[in-house]
Parts: sequence; structure tokens; C-alpha cells
Amino acid sequence: MAKNTFGNALKITIFGESHGAGVGVVIDGMTPGIDVDAEFINHQLELRRPSGRISTTRRESDPWQAVSGVFEGKTTGTSICLLIPNGDTRSRDYTPSVARPGHADFSAQCKYHGAQDYRGGGHFSGRITAGLVAAGGILIPALRKKGIEIGTHLARCAGVSDLPLDGAAMGDDHALREQLRLLGERAFPTLDSGAGERMVAAIEQAKMDADSVGGVLETAIVGLPAGLGEPWFDSLEGQLAHALFSIPGIKGVEFGAGFAMSEMRGSEANDPFRVIEDRIVTATNRNGGINGGITNGMPVTFRCAVKPTPSIAKEQQTVDFYKCEEQDFVIHGRHDPCIAHRARIVVDSVAAMVVADALLQRYGNDALA
Amino acid sequence: MAKNTFGNALKITIFGESHGAGVGVVIDGMTPGIDVDAEFINHQLELRRPSGRISTTRRESDPWQAVSGVFEGKTTGTSICLLIPNGDTRSRDYTPSVARPGHADFSAQCKYHGAQDYRGGGHFSGRITAGLVAAGGILIPALRKKGIEIGTHLARCAGVSDLPLDGAAMGDDHALREQLRLLGERAFPTLDSGAGERMVAAIEQAKMDADSVGGVLETAIVGLPAGLGEPWFDSLEGQLAHALFSIPGIKGVEFGAGFAMSEMRGSEANDPFRVIEDRIVTATNRNGGINGGITNGMPVTFRCAVKPTPSIAKEQQTVDFYKCEEQDFVIHGRHDPCIAHRARIVVDSVAAMVVADALLQRYGNDALA
Amino acid sequence: MAKNTFGNALKITIFGESHGAGVGVVIDGMTPGIDVDAEFINHQLELRRPSGRISTTRRESDPWQAVSGVFEGKTTGTSICLLIPNGDTRSRDYTPSVARPGHADFSAQCKYHGAQDYRGGGHFSGRITAGLVAAGGILIPALRKKGIEIGTHLARCAGVSDLPLDGAAMGDDHALREQLRLLGERAFPTLDSGAGERMVAAIEQAKMDADSVGGVLETAIVGLPAGLGEPWFDSLEGQLAHALFSIPGIKGVEFGAGFAMSEMRGSEANDPFRVIEDRIVTATNRNGGINGGITNGMPVTFRCAVKPTPSIAKEQQTVDFYKCEEQDFVIHGRHDPCIAHRARIVVDSVAAMVVADALLQRYGNDALA
Amino acid sequence: MAKNTFGNALKITIFGESHGAGVGVVIDGMTPGIDVDAEFINHQLELRRPSGRISTTRRESDPWQAVSGVFEGKTTGTSICLLIPNGDTRSRDYTPSVARPGHADFSAQCKYHGAQDYRGGGHFSGRITAGLVAAGGILIPALRKKGIEIGTHLARCAGVSDLPLDGAAMGDDHALREQLRLLGERAFPTLDSGAGERMVAAIEQAKMDADSVGGVLETAIVGLPAGLGEPWFDSLEGQLAHALFSIPGIKGVEFGAGFAMSEMRGSEANDPFRVIEDRIVTATNRNGGINGGITNGMPVTFRCAVKPTPSIAKEQQTVDFYKCEEQDFVIHGRHDPCIAHRARIVVDSVAAMVVADALLQRYGNDALA
Repeated sequence: MAKNTFGNALKITIFGESHGAGVGVVIDGMTPGIDVDAEFINHQLELRRPSGRISTTRRESDPWQAVSGVFEGKTTGTSICLLIPNGDTRSRDYTPSVARPGHADFSAQCKYHGAQDYRGGGHFSGRITAGLVAAGGILIPALRKKGIEIGTHLARCAGVSDLPLDGAAMGDDHALREQLRLLGERAFPTLDSGAGERMVAAIEQAKMDADSVGGVLETAIVGLPAGLGEPWFDSLEGQLAHALFSIPGIKGVEFGAGFAMSEMRGSEANDPFRVIEDRIVTATNRNGGINGGITNGMPVTFRCAVKPTPSIAKEQQTVDFYKCEEQDFVIHGRHDPCIAHRARIVVDSVAAMVVADALLQRYGNDALA
Repeated sequence: MAKNTFGNALKITIFGESHGAGVGVVIDGMTPGIDVDAEFINHQLELRRPSGRISTTRRESDPWQAVSGVFEGKTTGTSICLLIPNGDTRSRDYTPSVARPGHADFSAQCKYHGAQDYRGGGHFSGRITAGLVAAGGILIPALRKKGIEIGTHLARCAGVSDLPLDGAAMGDDHALREQLRLLGERAFPTLDSGAGERMVAAIEQAKMDADSVGGVLETAIVGLPAGLGEPWFDSLEGQLAHALFSIPGIKGVEFGAGFAMSEMRGSEANDPFRVIEDRIVTATNRNGGINGGITNGMPVTFRCAVKPTPSIAKEQQTVDFYKCEEQDFVIHGRHDPCIAHRARIVVDSVAAMVVADALLQRYGNDALA
Repeated sequence: MAKNTFGNALKITIFGESHGAGVGVVIDGMTPGIDVDAEFINHQLELRRPSGRISTTRRESDPWQAVSGVFEGKTTGTSICLLIPNGDTRSRDYTPSVARPGHADFSAQCKYHGAQDYRGGGHFSGRITAGLVAAGGILIPALRKKGIEIGTHLARCAGVSDLPLDGAAMGDDHALREQLRLLGERAFPTLDSGAGERMVAAIEQAKMDADSVGGVLETAIVGLPAGLGEPWFDSLEGQLAHALFSIPGIKGVEFGAGFAMSEMRGSEANDPFRVIEDRIVTATNRNGGINGGITNGMPVTFRCAVKPTPSIAKEQQTVDFYKCEEQDFVIHGRHDPCIAHRARIVVDSVAAMVVADALLQRYGNDALA
Repeated sequence: MAKNTFGNALKITIFGESHGAGVGVVIDGMTPGIDVDAEFINHQLELRRPSGRISTTRRESDPWQAVSGVFEGKTTGTSICLLIPNGDTRSRDYTPSVARPGHADFSAQCKYHGAQDYRGGGHFSGRITAGLVAAGGILIPALRKKGIEIGTHLARCAGVSDLPLDGAAMGDDHALREQLRLLGERAFPTLDSGAGERMVAAIEQAKMDADSVGGVLETAIVGLPAGLGEPWFDSLEGQLAHALFSIPGIKGVEFGAGFAMSEMRGSEANDPFRVIEDRIVTATNRNGGINGGITNGMPVTFRCAVKPTPSIAKEQQTVDFYKCEEQDFVIHGRHDPCIAHRARIVVDSVAAMVVADALLQRYGNDALA
């Protein structure tokens, strides 16, 4: 695992640029004979896509092709390549040498010495997450068939909080599963529709202010067997965090009660073990379903901090790194005032990828059959 | 990279159990000819060790041996094995089937089916971090010689806050380097000694209450070249977070302003680029020195949430997982009421490991010479 | 590195099936700013392609597209995806349940339980090597610019031997470089044209006999710096052999004098070191330029045994693995009576891939600039 | 997988030098609850050890310690460290700057710039294989319990040939299993004791001539399920060859009929599939039990070319690489005139390592239970 390839038993490789021929993903090590549901993949890509009032008007249509690894509607077991050609792109909006604040233009220049494709952020564009979402479009239904449900809501955005996810206390995850299923269908991922509307209004206000906002995404994974993950370096937390920090704009990841745990005392933070109907569960889930890096059978929960979109319409201070000169500038073109609500489908996809890998490592190559 | 091995160009493998023959580390891929300073390794191991009023009285002496890879006081370039034999251990304090809340006993049982060494947490014990700290004892001075300084303070503990690290605004990291150097020498890692004393008092109070506390560690890495790390899966954030979540008790990791960024607007979160003495820097460092997963030349900063020590003297509810029966129990033996201040040296070591790997990947095998 | 991904600093991922939408390769970790010469890639793909009298008349045209990672004719440094769509394919020639002897039909069935794409060998088809050759089409010129030349000849085929490669004794590799350059241009890769003609005649005779032949490929890599490779598991021999055994039909790999060395005495097998013009060289090169897994500066030489093409027109005994019944059958369709001469360009490409990876590991990410 | 770590689901890391504190191995990912039979490990280490008339008189006693990962005589499932301290070593026999022909002294110098431990070959010493053999001492019995038998004989040495291994034609591997079991017990690994005596005589003659000999080892693995291995880069052939080329002195690896296949026609090389007692087998086994990189259920067979021991007592030509001067010299000290017969136990161990990894990848973490 390294660079643009992630995973052990299941290896995900991504490629593409914002304004190149396309973006895509290679999924290697998948259980053979798994359904590939084109409708569901389209649905997921649609949720990722900028659309509606609060997103850029840039038209991204996401037709995709299974170049390999899919035969008669099922995975073959060999490497799957999903390709998503790029459509409408406006390269004239970008200059190669002005570092957009909060973007990778300058760090990319330091790494690639000017050879990088600078158009629209090139390989650093959020557009590349379409490949991850397409991969998730195969993995998420496969996990669901094994009783594993993944879902993410926008817990907080622009000063507005959503209702909390049901904690699945004492092992009864029925209500939580319902919430996750619901979120999978919602275009704007809040449990409380009123909160969602207030968030949308606040996002639109930010846009009118030529500015942008961020948010906090909260995710739960229900139905994982206990005993997944490794002690030390391949803790499930480490693997999830590694993959989650790939998603553009994510600057923090916490499991269970996370940073709030650092303020608790041990007697509060420790989740008491209990027996419910011959099953060992915990009475609380401050540890987010993971002890010592390994699942304990409770829902795995985590939260991701998404920074505000760096592309804003306000004038900003920056430099031209070819001239090494300061420069004030304005980003033209169409940009999202918030990506947090769209990022949730990327978070789900990335979580599915890590969880599927952990299952295949533990139970072998046919684990998802 | 997987399981107990981490890294790409520099591979770190750890092994050991709390009450077995010993713990240790194999460091593979190190630049040849690098000084191995036994004094410094001892110093680091000493900082990790429980000692003084606020730690367990269990006596851990940490003599270590370079089994391989060190010749005439320098690294050979081939795999270095550092072995730390275990000394005084009291196995009678542990039972195999009672799940200590907040510990890995139950999740380990689910993974290893009873074959795990349960004594003192076995392979899940914080004792295994001694191997990481020993590895750091070689890496940290090597990085320092290349102008790279790493340091961590206890930013918050038991309701008490330390002074902030100097932000190195506009690229002048002199004051920050001084702070990091100072922290490396302090037994209790706060910038403000008064805050440190108040934290110690609060930790001792927790102990008197048969309870424990956690904390937040804040780290800075100064002197990294711009252009380190990879886009997407091997972002420096992803690699650091992956390794940091290995450390027992860490439940959250955030870079730069982290979760606080999710409450900002883009105009506040974006770090404006500026030119100071022909060097491109940022006026603020909300992004923690990383854009698009790649260093931009500013200090890399992150914060780790450390949960309160799960071993507390209070009676707790739990289960016997062999009998599948609920049981109230009390942990006997000696335990730390706080590990956050000791964990900081593990954080430094793990950060050194990731950063050294990134340098070796970018500049090749002799990068640390 | 695992499954369909190979390499450490340079990672190559392949995908595709014989009768699917296409085949391709993702190249990750390449030095940025390297020329991508479309003409040369076409030339290499042409040499791999079945053509002329002694190959199948199946028409494979190999138009390819750089989906990502190439910008303004140069590598960007981010992941390069080269896609080669499939053209004319005749799926009617294949049945899903009859195990062609010497092919992977049965072993694939045991692994993929019937989900595999069985048409034309699916993912096991030699067609997938087009992706490797396309990758080599970028790597080989980049290595050449660093003074590294790779070439392969058909040392033996159908009872006919080619002239030997010049041994580059005592470090003078001028003649050997000339031979390698020559081979790169020849459609049929022998040094002795007469031997080449006799091989072609023997291959055609095999075809008339409804049979096939194999051969031995001999490769030299000139210009590698001393000190490449690792002791033990990542010996250059181990890395090369790992990759070479991916090529369909290769059943043996030997370095230097190889199996013949097992018949020598030490006094003959040991290559005496000498000094020529202040450069340390060896007087002979029985060890194929590698001692202890690491290059010594002499040409790296190896030989690959290529088995005869398993697809022959003769009637063969086999089984139907769905019915578990014996069955005599005849392979219809067009098939090569020999693939050894075409495989040489795959060998060159795979060797380039391993060598480039070793250089990037040793000298860092910009090693090929 | 890279450098001194090998494997995917099962990761093996080796360390040590000939004249350092010791050598050892870390085995990570092993199924928990597997017996660790100290007697068997001793037996294997004994077979590796130089002893008797035809080996160096250097006394290597191999006491070993399970530092971690073994509890109450069984594997815990966490990383196992086996440490073999070095005993009697005579460092005075070595000089740092004279390149012994056929050894890694010069290539190591080019890689490590003089920092390498040069005493007795340091990290390049055959002594490091003791760690591999110790690992094999755990893996081989675990595989045997799953019906998988591995064995190697010295097929040819110093002009003398052993009897062939029974080909297991048509799937009846009873006779072959008997041969492999027998070889596991023999100190000198030939099927024909007379051939063994002639080999020993020829080896002793080489020693009297101040010279050395090599040999060819032939291995069979019986009882593997069909469907192990991957197409392309992780073909079982590629994985085995990668690991086998780590063993010092191995310069060629061929599977099944190997190089001899390159002289056959397809009609001879193709193994016809047949049905015997409802089991699909092949009538011949030219492909060595592997088609398309994946096992077909027949015995996996391969041969390794072992070069003659480079350390010989004859005067040799070489250079001093510090002075860059030619020099004639004689190796003093005690050295084996042949290592091929001892290497077979290393080959068995390495094969066990690759096969166990393939099983764990395919069937999951508990595959060896």
C-alpha cells in the first residue's frame, strides 16, 4: 500500500485529473461473483455530484464504464477498472503559477517542479473522488448483503447542528440501521430536515458573501463482526483514518467520543461490558466500537472535520510562485460554497473500502460472497 | 505495510508482550552510517517510563540491546533490531477471561480465540511502545541533523490548558524551535511550568478518586522541506494519522486548526501565501503545513486526543467472556492515572518514523546522511 | 505489492481481459517531467503484436490513450493510466467449461468459481501484456537517457541457437550496447539473421504439424549503477524473477550462468575483480552483475525459459470441469505457434519496470529526471 | 512487502549479522493457537547447521528464544520474534576492504559506503538463513497438519545425479509423500543413498583441491488446494521465485519441466486433464502444478540452481576497494566446500512461508487452524 494504491487484501488504485481525459479506479482482490448494480453506482455518483442551488453550476455528468473485471453483471474476481470520462471542462479558468490559498497548487509545484497538470487542480481535484464513489458503489451493496450498513450525516454545518445518530446502546442497533438507510437516500444528509434547511440557507448566505463554509460529518458502521483489525499499525482506526485523510478538505478524524474523551475521567470513558440475550455488548459506546484497534461488535463510529471550500469569490492575498512575487487575486469560475454534504458519500465509500479489506483479510478472498 | 510493519522506504516492525521475554523493533531501510547515540535512546526510554508521583510504582528498567544493524556505533544500512528484555512482571494480577472495560481483552478474544497472551494486556500493552521510542531514539537525532525538529506538549489535561505553541507565523520558526527543544528535555511536557504543576495536582486527585484522566497532545514538526507526501492515499496526514492511531489511547487526530476549521469560513481558513526574504510562506498556518496531502514548508502541526487510562481502581461492571456472565470487578495492581504526558514521547517517535520514511521516499536511501 | 500491483517506489497496476472493453496499466510514482513518446510506445506495441507469417492472423490494432498522468507530452508525476481498448474479438471460439491443457481455465475455475471471464482466456490472456509493454514504452526511453540499455534476444528456439550476447568482459560494454540497440529495432529478435530465418522456418513447420514451440530469451541490462537492490527478500534477482514469472509461458529464470553454475567449481564460478581505468570490474560475469542480491556494476544478465504455446490445433485430451467428464477436443481459431519472439518485448518492459523501481528507491522520486 | 520483510497476509521480517549479537525473524499474521514444537525447530536448525566431514568445523550452536508471540507452547496470533544469539565467532579472519570474488563485499560497499558490518559477510552471511529455518520450524508442521507436505532433495551435485522424485502422475501422490517425509529426516538429502555417498566423496575431493561445488535442488509441495496464487504479479511462481532468490547462492529457479519445456513442442508440454475417481487431475505434470500462476491441485514442483560456495582456499585475484588496487589473496578460515545440501532446509522453509501466506490470503487469518 502506498501512493495511489490503498489496501491489503483489497487494493484500490485511483487515477485521473480534473481536466484530463477522465478519472477512474482499479479494484483488485474483490470476491468473485458479486453483483455490480449499475443503478446503484449511478445513484452514488449522483449524490457526489455538484447540483442544485448550493453547488457549482458546472455540469458534471458521470457516465462510467467497467473496462475490466465485470462479466455478465458480476465481479470476475480479477482487477476491476471503472473509468469515468471527463466531459465539459473549462481550462481557461486556471493559471499555472498562482497559488490558490488553501489549495495544493504550491505544494504540488514543490513536488512536481511544474510538470503537474494545473488545470482545475489536476490530480488534486475533488473530481478524483468519483473513482472512490464508483468503487463504493460496488462495495456498499456487497457489505449490505452481509448485514453491514454504513451511513454518514452532516452533524454540523455553518453553525447548525443535526440530531445525533442513535447510539445503539446495549447492542440494539435497529434504530441506527434505520437512520443509516434513510441517510443513504437523502440528497442532503441530515436526520432532521429542518436542520438541513437551515444549513442550506447558511451555505447560500456564505455564497452571497463570496465565502464558503465547512462542517462535521459523523459516520456509523453497523454489523461488523467483533475481531476485525489488527493491534498496532493496522488498527481499524489507523486504516480508516489513513483512507479518510485522503478525502480533500478533511482535517480531523475522531473515533467514538474522540476529543471529548480527553476531557472525561476513566470511569466515564470506559464502556461497561454487559450481556444481552447471550451476546456481549457495551452499555455505552464511547470507544466507537473499537478497543485496542480491533472491533468489539458495537457500531464503529467516527467524525470527520471538513474545512470550508478553499475556492471563494473574495479577493485573496497570494503569490505567483514562478515570479516569487506577492499578488492579490480573485478566483473566477463556478465553485461550491460547501463540499461537506457531498463529501459524505465519499466518506461512506472510503469506509466501505477499508471495512471490505478488513473482512477479506480476516475471512479470505470469498468473504463477501 | 500491514499488521505490525509500517512504512514504505523505512519499514518499522514491532513485537513483544507485556509479560513475555521482551519487546522490540526492527528498523529496515535506514540510511547507513547514521550515529546511534545510546545515551539519547536511554533518555527517550526514560521519558516514556512510568516514574514519579503520578505514575505506577511498577519498576520498569529498560536496558536494551542492538541485536543487529548497528556496527561501531553507527547504522549499517541493513535491518536494525533493538531488543528490550522485560524485567519485573507480576503475572498474578491478571485473569484471562474478564474483559477490563476500555481495554482490548474482549476484542482480542474475538480475534485470537483465547490464544492471546492475556497477562498485562499482552501484545496490547503500552509496554510495546518502548520499541517505538527506541526506534525514535535513532531517528530523532538523525532528523535533527537535517534541521528537522519534532516536539510535543500536553496542551490540555484534566481541565488545565498549557500555553500554545508559537505559531511560526510568516515562516519565522525560531521561537517554535526553541519551544520544541525545551520540551524534549522536560520530564513533564508543558511550556508553562505552572500549568504543568496544576495538571500534576489534578492527575493526583484523579488517582485519589480511584479514577484517571486523559489529555490533548499538540505536536509540531519544523524544518520539513516543501513537497513531502503524496496526493490521495499517502497524504502526509494519512500516513501520520495511520501511525498515530497505533498508539494506545489515541482516539482523535487533527491537523492544523482541525475540527475548529469546520466552524470557520473559507476566508478565515485559507492561509494567505506571502513572500518573506525570497521564501514563499503562509501568513497563518490553519492547514498545519499541509495542502493536498503535501507539505508546503510551514511547520506541520497536529493534535492527538488521549483518552483517560482505562485501568482504574474503582469497581466496574463487566463480563467474564468465557462464562458469558456479567460480573462486577476491581482492577488490582499498580496503574497510571494518566498516560498522556508519557505518550508524548511515543508521538514524537512515531512522527519521526513517518517523516523519515517520507524523506527516504522522496530523496532516496541516503537522504538522512 | 500484491496481486495486480507490483513495485515499491514505482507501482504498476494492470487490468483487462482479452474480450472485455480493453486492457491497461496504471503507473504510479513516476518521476515528473519525463517525455512520453507516443511513437516509441506504438513501436513497442507493434513488436508485441502478432503479425506476419508465424503469428495468428487475428488482427490486433493497439490504439491507446493516456487517460491520466500525462500533460503536454510529459509525465506529471501523478498516476498515469494508459488504456488500450479491445478491437476485433471473436467470442464464439470459446466455451466456458472445457479446460484447455496448459492454460489457466481449470485453475481459474477453482479460484473464481465460474465468475471469471472465460472468453479468450479472459484476464489470463497474453493480451494483458500490452499494458506492460505500454508502460515499458515510457520507462525504457527514460532509462536510456540515464545510460541504461535493456535488450533481449531469442537465444534458442525450436532447436536453433542464436549467437551469444557479448559478455561485456572487463567492463567494456560498448559491443553489448550495440547489440541491445540493434535488437530493439529488429522484428525478430536474433543477433544472427540466419539463425532467425532457421527459427522462423522451424516455427512454421510446427504450425504445419498443428503444434507449437517454445524458446529461451536472454536479456542484458547495461549501465546500472553498482549498489542497486537489497540483501535478502528484495534482491534484484528476486524482484526481477517475481515480475518475470508474471509473463505468460515463462517457466524458468536464471541469472548469469544460472543452472550451468551449479556444475562449475568455485574457482570457475567466482568472477575475479579487476581494476580497469580506475573502475572496479570483474574479469568474467558468471554472476550476472549481481552479488548478494545487489548490482556490482557489471551488466545484469538473465535467461527466461518460455514454454511452447499451449493453444495447438492438434486434438487433445481434457475434461469438462462442469460435468467432471473427460473429453477429447480441438482448439479452433487462430493461434500463434510460438510466442517467445514476441515475449521478448514484454521481458524488456518488465525489466525496465523493476530497474526503474530500484533506481527510484535508491535515489528518490526524481531519479529518472 | 519490501526489503527484509516478505509476504502479504503472513509477513516475515529477518535481521542479523554473522558476527553481531544474533540473528532472528519476526513472523506476523500467523493463525493463533498453532503448536510451536521446540524439538522440531531444533531438528530443522540442526539440518541447516554446518556439521560433519564436508562442512566447516566452525561450531555453530543454535539455541533460540521465542521473544514474543508464543504463549503456553502455541502461537498467540500476534507477531512472533524468534531470536538466535550468535556464539563462537572469529572476527579476526576478515578484512573490510578486500572484495572476496563471488561474495557481496563489493556490492555492499557500493550500497552502504563502508558502514556495513563486513565481518564474516555481515548481513549477507548464510547465517541469517537460520531465522528463516526457525520460522519454517513453526510453519512446516502447521502445513503438515493441513495435509501439505514439502520436501527437497539434492537432485544433482558435483557431477552425480540422485534418483528423480516420483512424479505423482494422475494425482496419486502417495509415493511422493513418502519420499518427501523420508528426505525431511535425512541429514544428506538424496533419495538414493549411494548417490549421496558419491556426492559426499566428490565434495570432499573439491575441498582437497581447495575448491568448492554447487548443485541443483528439487522440491515438491504436495497437498495444496487448487486455486492458490494470483494471475500476473502474484503468481505462485512469482512469489516462490522472489523468496527463493533470497537464499544465498541460488542463481536459477524453474517450475515443472522448466528450461527443458523450452525445447518441447506444445503437444508434449501440455498436461492433459483427466478424471480419476471424480477428481480432475493431469496425466503429466510438466507445468509443475501451476497454470496461469494458480495451483491446479497437482504437486507444485521446482528446481533451484545453487552455485558453488564462493569461499575457496585457492589463491584468487581481486581488488582492495579502498585503495582501488588489484590484489591476489587467499581466504583463510573454515568454509564449506558445498552448501547445496544444507540449503535444502532453507528452501523448504521459504516454500512453507510462501505457501502459508497464499493459504492465509485465500482462506483468511485462521486458515492454518
